[in-house]
Amino acid sequence: MGANLARNLARNGYTVALHNRTQAKTDDLLAKHGGDGNFVRTETLEEFVAALERPRRVLVMVKAGAPVDAVIEQLVPLLEEGDIIIDGGNSLYLDTIRREKELSAKGLHFVGVGVSGGEEGALNGPSIMPGGSKESYASLGPMLEKISAKYNGEPCCAWIETDGAGHFVKMVHNGIEYADMQVIGEAYELLRSGAGIEPAEQAEIFRQWNTGQLNSFLIEITAEVLAHTDAKTGKPFVDVVVDSAGQKGTGRWTVIAALELGSPVTGIAESVFARGLSSQRDQRAVAEQTLVAGTEDVDVPESFVDDVRQALYASKLVSYAQGLDMLNLAGKQYDWDLKLDRIASLWRAGCIIRAELLDDIMQAYAPGNEPENLLFAPAFAKAIGDAVPAWRRVVATAARLGIPTPVFSSSLAYYDGLRRDRLPAALTQGLRDLFGAHTYHRIDGEGTFHTLWGEDKSEIEAVDTH
Amino acid sequence: MGANLARNLARNGYTVALHNRTQAKTDDLLAKHGGDGNFVRTETLEEFVAALERPRRVLVMVKAGAPVDAVIEQLVPLLEEGDIIIDGGNSLYLDTIRREKELSAKGLHFVGVGVSGGEEGALNGPSIMPGGSKESYASLGPMLEKISAKYNGEPCCAWIETDGAGHFVKMVHNGIEYADMQVIGEAYELLRSGAGIEPAEQAEIFRQWNTGQLNSFLIEITAEVLAHTDAKTGKPFVDVVVDSAGQKGTGRWTVIAALELGSPVTGIAESVFARGLSSQRDQRAVAEQTLVAGTEDVDVPESFVDDVRQALYASKLVSYAQGLDMLNLAGKQYDWDLKLDRIASLWRAGCIIRAELLDDIMQAYAPGNEPENLLFAPAFAKAIGDAVPAWRRVVATAARLGIPTPVFSSSLAYYDGLRRDRLPAALTQGLRDLFGAHTYHRIDGEGTFHTLWGEDKSEIEAVDTH
Repeated sequence: MGANLARNLARNGYTVALHNRTQAKTDDLLAKHGGDGNFVRTETLEEFVAALERPRRVLVMVKAGAPVDAVIEQLVPLLEEGDIIIDGGNSLYLDTIRREKELSAKGLHFVGVGVSGGEEGALNGPSIMPGGSKESYASLGPMLEKISAKYNGEPCCAWIETDGAGHFVKMVHNGIEYADMQVIGEAYELLRSGAGIEPAEQAEIFRQWNTGQLNSFLIEITAEVLAHTDAKTGKPFVDVVVDSAGQKGTGRWTVIAALELGSPVTGIAESVFARGLSSQRDQRAVAEQTLVAGTEDVDVPESFVDDVRQALYASKLVSYAQGLDMLNLAGKQYDWDLKLDRIASLWRAGCIIRAELLDDIMQAYAPGNEPENLLFAPAFAKAIGDAVPAWRRVVATAARLGIPTPVFSSSLAYYDGLRRDRLPAALTQGLRDLFGAHTYHRIDGEGTFHTLWGEDKSEIEAVDTH
Repeated sequence: MGANLARNLARNGYTVALHNRTQAKTDDLLAKHGGDGNFVRTETLEEFVAALERPRRVLVMVKAGAPVDAVIEQLVPLLEEGDIIIDGGNSLYLDTIRREKELSAKGLHFVGVGVSGGEEGALNGPSIMPGGSKESYASLGPMLEKISAKYNGEPCCAWIETDGAGHFVKMVHNGIEYADMQVIGEAYELLRSGAGIEPAEQAEIFRQWNTGQLNSFLIEITAEVLAHTDAKTGKPFVDVVVDSAGQKGTGRWTVIAALELGSPVTGIAESVFARGLSSQRDQRAVAEQTLVAGTEDVDVPESFVDDVRQALYASKLVSYAQGLDMLNLAGKQYDWDLKLDRIASLWRAGCIIRAELLDDIMQAYAPGNEPENLLFAPAFAKAIGDAVPAWRRVVATAARLGIPTPVFSSSLAYYDGLRRDRLPAALTQGLRDLFGAHTYHRIDGEGTFHTLWGEDKSEIEAVDTH
């Protein structure tokens, strides 16, 4: 990623001083791609820092965690007031908040920048989500916007908000990416095991889906992966790949942050858990032999394929709605004035979740008209309303066929939970009041109450212990 | 809780020195319950510490977080080597690990003790889960076992493992409690909105269920809450309670800890999120007016009631299986030799999740025969296998009726995910390899591979970046 960002900068006319802990990496880059633009080869960190014009803009691309702190510690004595350290990795936003505070006390700018788009995006134009001070963006913005992806000519880079906001938004982007991939996986599995459609044929279906409301990079490459035949065995490629996916870093962090904010991001959480379950290979091997299927014979009509498309779309919308709702809550918590239209606009090109949908989401959050939940925007309320009958059929069919659809199901439960006038949380509150005197509120008046369950069941006013 | 634990100790023949920050609390306890046994009234912390016999056993009952550290700081200068500080609150296990380390360096014992059972349990016998050093348990064990709940004469108190293990296990207990209440809520809602059964009639159903495999404290009190009529309005009590439940502390922590362990605790997570969603009252009000139902007319047969019972039971088993699996992973992570049979035995009486089921779980983990997952124990594999057809019908019906069943649905997805030979995680890995060169493993041999997607799609050996 670091090498490709350096090449991207050089190609855009910037002179780029290079430094790697392993000198061979620098020389390798210069040997292969020295012709991309003006590079300055440096052997020591001192030489590197000396090569930069003031205010210095130092882009650090190392593994998140302790390595970032280690590089900062080495850099700080070499820098001067007003210089800028940019962390372009997937750092935890809490670390970025801490580092920004520490460095601003020393007169330095620290800018956590979320960069999405993989290696190719880094080279040809990623989506860029910079946090840090507004002042630092005045210096960095033109450069970052120049190397970013463009959507209809607009740069997919804009200042997000202070300190850790850029990394926070990138983290949620990655969480949504987890959910996007999981709902594609559920659709694939339903078509495969439910409708008996082989990967090559599914590739055609996904290609078709990519021409409609699902149009997106991930649907496009799903078709590519499903169309691929393993050269060694002649089998579909997906059938020779071990079906375990890891879950570390940003996906997990998104759910942890959401829990701390009290934000119900069920779609992302189920996606993270689905990866966790996929990795429990020992248990899965025992379960396959031990657990009863108890499934039903279900006639799967031809219309099932389009039902699955609609279920995928609806579940995807829920994940986006949840992720954006989480950003709203984070804004309140961390005092960031997050503009959801701007954030959606940055995701329209360059990043992994890029999709036509993001342009519609940007429109939905047009200033002055922001819905409290994405699903309440008229266009999306209609879109998900159109899809919900098919979505229900798919979730019901999956349950009867024994095909796991954690995100399709959980997203539907969220949708139904959100729209219902009464939830069984009232019963939960009753139980908690009975066993722990946790008190409750009444629908017909102010105040906090407790029922004397062990006595005559009369109701008393109580101190709010919520 | 603190006052009731003190009374419980006094009733069991222990002399209890009392100290509160607010002196009136001590005097109030003595005025009302001084006759329970031998209490020593103290006005200052110095006086309190001086009143204790060596090694001193100081039980701290204050709010989790900073207050615990504050009390420790005040106590430490007054204590001597070998004295024991006991934290009986719901502290985060990571804090307990830290405090134990700090205090053992000072020659003091610090024992984090999980206590469950609410106010009544504290007085009459709670379930007690002590961590800390084995040496400290030699001093505390007889006393804690004496005041604990008893199941067939066996104390519901035993040493869990070192440092934060007691608080960790209590935290997971609470997480399971969240799930237990949520599945009861889902059953209630299905019977109410799906089958049209009013709360009073449901009370009878839950009473009936309490005589079978669901027999438990929470099912028992559900009947009590549902049977209760609000005196003010004459309506069912559950209908006048605000349907928002908070989610803070242990429930949330359980899910965060699980994410850090890579443990898929979907049931507990969905329960925490369901509470979060219930609290988003502003959004819910808009959603009710905005979101399309798109539900189906479904004939709900009389057999639905028993189907719901089975779905509740199966979902409950999944939550327990997930919680216990999480304990296994935590044991490896924190170097605790957790005995699941012992832990289950402590939950058989005194605590909120107490149930006959826990005795069966204890048997399932009999030494030498521990299943890798609760659901693999023969008795539970059979029990959940018997329930799965009904469970599928209920999840399918809920989806079609538009009744949110996040835990019923998610638990079924977990069950189906666990038992399937292939999961779509293989497709996820293919996508990640395409867009990020994240590599994959093959089912037919060792090694790590990458496909050159942008070139001729040939496969190369790669460095493992998982």
